[in-house]
Amino acid sequence: MRVLGIDPGSQITGWGVVEGDANGRSYRLIEFGVVRLNSSATFSSRLLKISQALDEVISRLKPDACAIEEAFLATNPKVTLKLGQVRGVALLAAESAALEIGEYSPRTIKQTVAGYGNAEKRQVQEMVRLLLSLPSVPEPHDAADALAVAICHFHHAGMNRQILAVENDIKARAAAAAAFRRRV
Amino acid sequence: MRVLGIDPGSQITGWGVVEGDANGRSYRLIEFGVVRLNSSATFSSRLLKISQALDEVISRLKPDACAIEEAFLATNPKVTLKLGQVRGVALLAAESAALEIGEYSPRTIKQTVAGYGNAEKRQVQEMVRLLLSLPSVPEPHDAADALAVAICHFHHAGMNRQILAVENDIKARAAAAAAFRRRV
Repeated sequence: MRVLGIDPGSQITGWGVVEGDANGRSYRLIEFGVVRLNSSATFSSRLLKISQALDEVISRLKPDACAIEEAFLATNPKVTLKLGQVRGVALLAAESAALEIGEYSPRTIKQTVAGYGNAEKRQVQEMVRLLLSLPSVPEPHDAADALAVAICHFHHAGMNRQILAVENDIKARAAAAAAFRRRV
Repeated sequence: MRVLGIDPGSQITGWGVVEGDANGRSYRLIEFGVVRLNSSATFSSRLLKISQALDEVISRLKPDACAIEEAFLATNPKVTLKLGQVRGVALLAAESAALEIGEYSPRTIKQTVAGYGNAEKRQVQEMVRLLLSLPSVPEPHDAADALAVAICHFHHAGMNRQILAVENDIKARAAAAAAFRRRV
């Protein structure tokens, strides 16, 4: 399974693609990068640049899923609105390519990647480096943050699949038991 | 000139296309409609539906410009974020088609269409009906609101062009005067 992680931002949007087994036991880095936006450009032209960059990454690297951080709700509503606009364009890129989409809170990402919900950003980035066996933390850090959310998705997608498998197993056993009782 | 007005919303997104002369002196309705979103669908699938609907309208009706209301900053940041996501997708549709984009505050729209910045929504909708010579106010009202912002763009785009023309005229006269002084 390949997962595209996205860290949306109105100045820099980070992305990173990670491949691994669906259980989140082993993974490796495929590629990472950032979309830098010219702050003097119109906001709509920035949205187009993000959209084109993500479409290109998706069509070239063919991820199966997309993981994105749940939006940080800024105290300044104008900041929230801008972030929402960027996030909408990122979600659209993933949905247009029919990717499975996972959204995770900053706390869940920290907990999953660094083992501690209040971990600092640099601890999470260092864990990304270790988990992907990289010589140094990916720069700019927006790309490392995107890789963190991709890694987070592996664990949760794996866990969700395991839960589903256990639930299906329980249902099958219950059905078999019911069928047995009807026969007796 | 043809203008596509958009009233973005996470449940209903209204749109309307108006054609007229660039000075905002006369215009007529081309078409209007709404994109209704299933509130039980995932948010990203709603974004895809809005995107596809707007792309279809733009490619079929070929507007030259797109007008959109400046976002209303809700007191609930989650609402602002959702609206931002929808708005991002709408701006992307316009920018992808290389449309001229105009953004107007609710006050400017009311002032321009109803002649009064504190006009009520239904007064604005009634003016839309009158200005486009329609038998009744377009329903749902999200479409009437989209037509109001399109009409607003005609006036401002026309005014901006007139200001530009006057400025260019002044520059040309100043250059001619300077050239005349050099000759004397």
